[in-house]
Order: sequence, then structure tokens, then C-alpha cells
Amino acid sequence: MQSNDKKPQFINVENMHQGMYKCEYAVRGATVLRAEQIAEEIASGKAKYSFKETMECNVGNPHALGQQPITFGRQVLSLLMSPSLIETSNFPEGVKKRAIYYRDRIRGNLGAYAASCGYKFVRENLAKALEQRDGGAPSNWEQIILTDGASAAITMVLHSLIPDKDAGIMLPTPQYPLYSATITVAGGQQVPYYLDEDSGWQIKAEDLAKSYEEARKRGVKVRAIVVINPGNPTGQILDEEAMRKIIKFSYDHDLCILADEVYQQNVWTEKKKFISFKKVVYNMPEPYNKTALFSFGSCSKGFMGECGLRGGYVEFYNVDPAVEAQFRKFKTISLSTNTVGQVMMDMMMNPPNELENGKEVTEQYNREKEAIIASLKRKALAATKIFNSMKNVECQEIEGAMYCFPRIKLSNKAIQEARRRKIAPDLLYCLEALDYTGMVTVEGTGFGQKEGTYHFRSTILITPDKRFEEALEKFKEFNEAFHEKYKDHQEEMRIRPKL
Amino acid sequence: MQSNDKKPQFINVENMHQGMYKCEYAVRGATVLRAEQIAEEIASGKAKYSFKETMECNVGNPHALGQQPITFGRQVLSLLMSPSLIETSNFPEGVKKRAIYYRDRIRGNLGAYAASCGYKFVRENLAKALEQRDGGAPSNWEQIILTDGASAAITMVLHSLIPDKDAGIMLPTPQYPLYSATITVAGGQQVPYYLDEDSGWQIKAEDLAKSYEEARKRGVKVRAIVVINPGNPTGQILDEEAMRKIIKFSYDHDLCILADEVYQQNVWTEKKKFISFKKVVYNMPEPYNKTALFSFGSCSKGFMGECGLRGGYVEFYNVDPAVEAQFRKFKTISLSTNTVGQVMMDMMMNPPNELENGKEVTEQYNREKEAIIASLKRKALAATKIFNSMKNVECQEIEGAMYCFPRIKLSNKAIQEARRRKIAPDLLYCLEALDYTGMVTVEGTGFGQKEGTYHFRSTILITPDKRFEEALEKFKEFNEAFHEKYKDHQEEMRIRPKL
Repeated sequence: MQSNDKKPQFINVENMHQGMYKCEYAVRGATVLRAEQIAEEIASGKAKYSFKETMECNVGNPHALGQQPITFGRQVLSLLMSPSLIETSNFPEGVKKRAIYYRDRIRGNLGAYAASCGYKFVRENLAKALEQRDGGAPSNWEQIILTDGASAAITMVLHSLIPDKDAGIMLPTPQYPLYSATITVAGGQQVPYYLDEDSGWQIKAEDLAKSYEEARKRGVKVRAIVVINPGNPTGQILDEEAMRKIIKFSYDHDLCILADEVYQQNVWTEKKKFISFKKVVYNMPEPYNKTALFSFGSCSKGFMGECGLRGGYVEFYNVDPAVEAQFRKFKTISLSTNTVGQVMMDMMMNPPNELENGKEVTEQYNREKEAIIASLKRKALAATKIFNSMKNVECQEIEGAMYCFPRIKLSNKAIQEARRRKIAPDLLYCLEALDYTGMVTVEGTGFGQKEGTYHFRSTILITPDKRFEEALEKFKEFNEAFHEKYKDHQEEMRIRPKL
Repeated sequence: MQSNDKKPQFINVENMHQGMYKCEYAVRGATVLRAEQIAEEIASGKAKYSFKETMECNVGNPHALGQQPITFGRQVLSLLMSPSLIETSNFPEGVKKRAIYYRDRIRGNLGAYAASCGYKFVRENLAKALEQRDGGAPSNWEQIILTDGASAAITMVLHSLIPDKDAGIMLPTPQYPLYSATITVAGGQQVPYYLDEDSGWQIKAEDLAKSYEEARKRGVKVRAIVVINPGNPTGQILDEEAMRKIIKFSYDHDLCILADEVYQQNVWTEKKKFISFKKVVYNMPEPYNKTALFSFGSCSKGFMGECGLRGGYVEFYNVDPAVEAQFRKFKTISLSTNTVGQVMMDMMMNPPNELENGKEVTEQYNREKEAIIASLKRKALAATKIFNSMKNVECQEIEGAMYCFPRIKLSNKAIQEARRRKIAPDLLYCLEALDYTGMVTVEGTGFGQKEGTYHFRSTILITPDKRFEEALEKFKEFNEAFHEKYKDHQEEMRIRPKL
């Protein structure tokens, strides 16, 4: 027993898990905190802004910015929540039919735990849908695990690949900070490889080799490579030739590929198509077709954008069956992925069709889907165009995904002001943009970028189009004002510093 | 570049994360795998059993065994899934009113990410409800984080307390294997303390001290103690005096308390009441009222049993604010807890009332709630009684939670048969029980038990009562047959081996 006057040493930042302490996640960082302050100031009347509410362009969250859910999926879920409605209400027959299909396959109801790896019928349906997507490359339902959003799947796979502090994971730079944060939590090493901005953020084989060698020299055992396609935050779409090079590189260096394909339905350019890594691996010659692959998908993205329902999956391909068994066992510990997300995931991959659900339901679904896709396509175009029309801003074409990642030229004066405030220069830009426009964006520093370059990420999700365009025009006004405010006495600004 | 004939070293069981490889989770282990086989055999007609389907008594999953959801909560969720129904359909006004309350507070709709730590209004409501539960012990919404079921919260807190391999967590034995598995994954040390079966699985201060000292001697730095109240798998309810001793012990040894209170609404004995650790800590004299506490709750348990919707929370109390900030940051990485579980969690703590929701809705809610509680109470009584009437079986009173954990006396012959099959003796019993009765139970070995004793865990959830009693009678028949089959030639069996 100890005396009563000592200070107890419960958990504190020194004795807690240091990975949890050190990890950083900019997407919900400084600009989000400032946005919360602003919301409170507006609510309390303490301060006035030129906007009524902030717009969360920091995270790919379509429904928060006005996108409406697809009616079909929600009607089916309404029926599954209260199955007695199936008998009584006047929902369309085609909707009821799908609800009955799920009801008959779910043991108990949505309130019962599903099997640890997810409903078997959803995994089977998903396997079929992925086979169809990939022109016949085989999918096995037992190699699919359903998770609470793709984030949970990615976290699980990253942890499995980091047995000790020497394990490294190659990450695109810029990258989505879930990866860097999770690697920090797991206690492994980030091995960044740079995307080439000038060629539209493409991945070059020589950059991979350089990054790998650099890591190897500092004693890192590189275990895997993350590829995000379509790119986040960078919006590029990989072509098959680049993917083949990545696969060959991975095989030759014993690297598993983590293919983050959550934006597979978000393709805006007419010039390219989404091709899955699975399909390309499958079609590679021996032995490259044996490359181990984890691929990820989600109902949070695509045109449904059902982020809050947390549906996602990981598919294993060429993964050691003994390791797959470990994942299945590991998943049992957390009992069950949420059931609603699983059903929504199924509806994303298995839309209604005339034969099952009738003409009316199918047509309404397609109409809503196409309207969302068309709007996003227009907004991707508009964002690329308007950002490129702004002073000291340069934006690569948004080929896919939900983001733009414009590069900004900052004056010495702005950089010095940021230094004075002990924040990154691009964070200064984002914070001032927020106060001026109400748009919550994220500084490039949060994603990683080449030394001496500055960027920010914004989603392209404000709905409807008109509101988005107005927001961009306001942003343009801000950008002018910002550059005027921080104008150097001499023209010292350079958009292309020597790297 | 390497030659093409080498075998690639992608992920395998040797180079993967060893915690994930080594962890075990019996609740979905051998008996569940066998149940899946049986289900397939029945479906394909390959084998015949005396039952039509297996009954999953391995996991506290009420809706899988016939419990119906509470109408109110599901109707509200039906409306939130398809908000246009609020205007058009003839749901009761009191239900619509609650749906509107949520709709007006949720930014976007259920399909948008919530704030990382959960909807603010749910956290505020929860704080109020907890204050009321605890007779005024203060709750602060900022110290509550909403999670995908309590499992996610427990996993997060355990990880935070294990910075290195010397960190130990005191666990009740028997315990719920989420704890042991997660500690293994996190790479820390399990520090078991035994519950005293003879006194109804109570916790004794001298056992805590013994366990702590033993761990300290082997170099373990004990960081926290887990207490499950009401107990899982053991069903006991702690009295305030025992809790005060645990708190004093924890403070004196710098241990955080992890209070697993997911069964706080599941109290069956008339002799005891659930008291939260928060309330007892709050009422302790200085300095013990400063003991750091994490407490956990869930909408999976209680009378709602909405397991599949994955709603849960952790509340911090006396936790260093700098550490709380780290948890809030950490939660941002996984973006958002599923929204449906958050709303259900709110409805669990904030039931309808006459003033807001009208008499009819409130009365229906109370009727359904009371029917479920009364049925569970009857089943707890019946299970205690019937198990104690079985040969070589002894069952402590099921005071709370959803399980019984009877002790079984096994013959030398049974033990030898198990040894021959390389399985635990109580697993042999559970496997044969499954084949005979269709009831999926879990061997005591999966939860931990004193050397030389054998138990199994079964839920008390089969619905309706009659079906449960029939199942128990069938189990009694099995138990007789099992002991007859494995009867020793001489009467060598002992229910109380020397420990």
C-alpha cells in the first residue's frame, strides 16, 4: 500500500501506447477544429461571417453536403428495420421483393450479429459482382471479409503486415492519411514514394525503386505497397501499363499490394476506365500472376456515398490460405460488422434490375444514379477549370475520386507568417480560406508533398452544382485577396522551386 | 531483381503480426465450426439429427434466437432511412416526433459521417441519462465516445494501456475472451485474477493482491484491471462493498479500472441492484474518488439486444485530459462510428415517454420491454434450477447478464477421450452436447477456469420460454447419456479436485 499523498500514475501521454500518441490525421485536424469554433460563433451570434454555415469539404462525405440517398436502398432498409411493413405498406413491389430476399437470408433480423466475416449471401453476391466487373477473373466468397467501412479493413491488413518496428509499407505521397496514421499506431515504418504531379500524379517505376532502396538502406524491411486508384487526394486514374509495372515491381520485391479501390465507381474522365488490380494481376504472365493482393471497396464512395452506414470489404487474392484463416479468426474477436452496412454494400454491387424489381423501380434507380454521376462529373470538370483560372494555383485534371488537390504558390510573406504562427504555410492558406468562404479544406502537408511545394485538398461534393460553382467563385475571390494580402515586395514567388 | 524460380515471401504466418497470429477467441471457435458443418449436413441431407436447426447459445445474440426487436426503435429507424415517410405514412405521431427530433439534429442524414466521436446530441443525451442513472454523479458529454459496439471501445482502451510487452492487464478468470484476445494482439500480458465460484463468482480483495504480486514478480507492469459487472460468463452482480475494495486496490496500485457494464440492464435477482463503478468512485472519499475509470455500455445487450446495429460507448472518468484528447484524435482516423448504432444507443438510454411520444407509443414500448425482461428473468431462474438438477452439474445463481456457466464433473474416461482427440475435456462435452441437442455452447477453457475444473457457457436467450425449457430438458437427457457413455469403471469422479 502506498501513501495517500503521492500523485497516482494512471494513464498519461508518457505511459500510454506511443503509436496512438504520435499518430496524426489531418483530414479532421486544425481546419475542422476552426470550423467547429466558427459554427459555435455563428450559433451564439458572437461573430459574423459572410456565410451561414461552413461546408465540410475536408472529407468525402456527400450526404453532408446535400447529395440525396438513392431511394431504392433506403426503402429496402426501411422495410428491413420494420419487417411488418412488408405486408402492410404500399412500397413498390420491386422494393418489397428485394427486402424479402434479404429478410429470408438474414438469421433473426438486422439486430442479430452476422457471421464474423459478414453475411455469407452478401459475400457470395459480392464475389459474383467482382467476377463480372473483372471479366471473369475468379472471386471466391470465402476470400472476402465484410467490414465497417473500408477503413476497418485497411487498418486490419496494415496491422497484419507490421510484426515489428522494422516493417515498412510503401505509401504514395501525397497519400490518404489513414495509412500514415495507422502505420504509426502499429509501430511500423512509412516508406513514401512520390507521385509525379507534372504527369498528372502518375506512378513511375523508377520512383518505386528509389523509394524501396532508400528504405532498405536504413534497415527497413519493406512488406507491402499501397496504391490508391482512383487517387486520393490526387484524383488520377492508373492505366494498365503502369499497373503492370507496379505488380512486377511488387512481385520482384516480395511486396503485397494493398489496392485501395474505394473510388472504383468514381471515374470522371472520358479518356480512362477503372481497371482493378485483381484483373491485371490475374492477366499477368507467370509468376507475376501470383502476386499477393488485398483490395478494398466501400459503399461510402461511388455514387451512393452512404458513408454513415459503414459498409466495406477486403478481398484477398494470392494470399497464403493459412494467413486468410488468421484474418477470419481475428475478425471473430469483434463479433460482427454492422449489418446495415453489409446490406447496403450488397445493394451497391447488386442494383435492382427489371427482371427482379420491375421497370419502374429500376428506372427510378438508374435515373437517380445517373443524375448523381452526371453532377459529380460536371463538378470535377468545373473544379479543374476554375482552380486553374486562379492566380498562383495549378490543378491537375480530376480524372476520378471525389477530390481536387491544387498546388498553390505562396509568397515569402505568407510563409513567414505561417512560421510565426508555427503552422504549415498551406494550413495558413486553408484557415484563411475557411474564414473567408466557409469551405473546410485540408492542407497538403496532411497528405505529404514534395518539399517546398504547397497544396490543399477539397472535395468536389457541394450539391447542387450551382452552390458548388458559387463556392468556387467565392474561393477564387478569397485566393485573390490572400495573395494580395501576402504579396512580397519583390516578385520572389516561384511555383516551381528546384526539388 | 530476383530470379523467377524463387518462392515469393509475401505475408505468411511466420512473418505476419504475431499477436494476430497467436490470439484465440473461443466464443466463435470449435463448437461454432462444428455447428456450421451440421447446418450444411442438414441442408444437404447428408446426415440426420434430432433437431431441425442448431441454436446459437455461444454468443449473446438475442435476435438470432427469437427475441423480437422493440417496435419503437425500429419504426424510428425506418423513418430515418426514408425521411419522406415522415410526411406521408401513418406511423404513430409519437414515433414520427422522435424521428423528426433525430432528423433535425443529424447533419445530412444517416448516410453522412457523424463527428468522429459520435453525434454531439447523442453524447449529450447519454451524459444526462448516465447522470440520472448514477444519482447525480456528473457526466460530461465530451468524455463520452460512441463506438461500433462496446467491443470497439474496449479494444481501443486496451491498446492505449499497452505501450510495450511488459504492460499487464488484470483480467477476471473466467473472463470474456475479447479481453485476452485483444491483450495478445496488443502484445501485452494477461494478469488473471480468479473469481470465487463457491461464493457465487465474487471478487475477493486478497485474490487481487495475490494476482498483482505474482505478476510484479515476473516483471509485469500492471496498468489496469478489468471488471465485468454483471459478470460474463459468470452472471454475478457485484455489491457496493466489493466495488469499493476494488477501487481502493486500483488506486493504491495506480491501476485504471475498465468497467465492462454492458449488462447493466440485465439484472435478474431480486436481491441485488446494478450499481455503476462511476457512482461508487464518485462517492468514495479522497483520494479514491480520483481513480481513473473507463466504463463501457452497448445497445447490443440490455432488453433491446440490438447486436447487429453495433452501438456502444466508453465514458472516461478521472482520465488525464491530455489522454482524452489522444483518444479523440485517434477516433478521427476511422472517420465515423456507424450512425444507426448511435441512434439506437440514444433510444436505449432515452426511451419514449408520455409527454413527448404519447400514451399509446409509450405503453407499447413498456409492454414490449417488460415482456422481454420478464422472459429473461424466468429463463435465468429456470436455467439455474434445471442445470442444478442435472447429474454431475452445478450452477451458481444467474443474477444477471445473459449466460450461465455451469460446472461439470467429468470422468477419467471422458478426460482420456478428450486427450486422445487433443481437445479440452469440456470441449468434448460441448461438442457432444451440440450433436445431441443442437445447442451451441462454449467450453469453459475458452474463458479460463481453475486448473482441474470444467465448465461451459450457454446463453439463456432461446425464445420463447417453452422452447428454452424444452432445450434444457433435452440437454438434461444429453447430460445423462454423456455421463453414462463415459462412466468410469470405478467411481473416480470428483467434483472438487484439490486445487
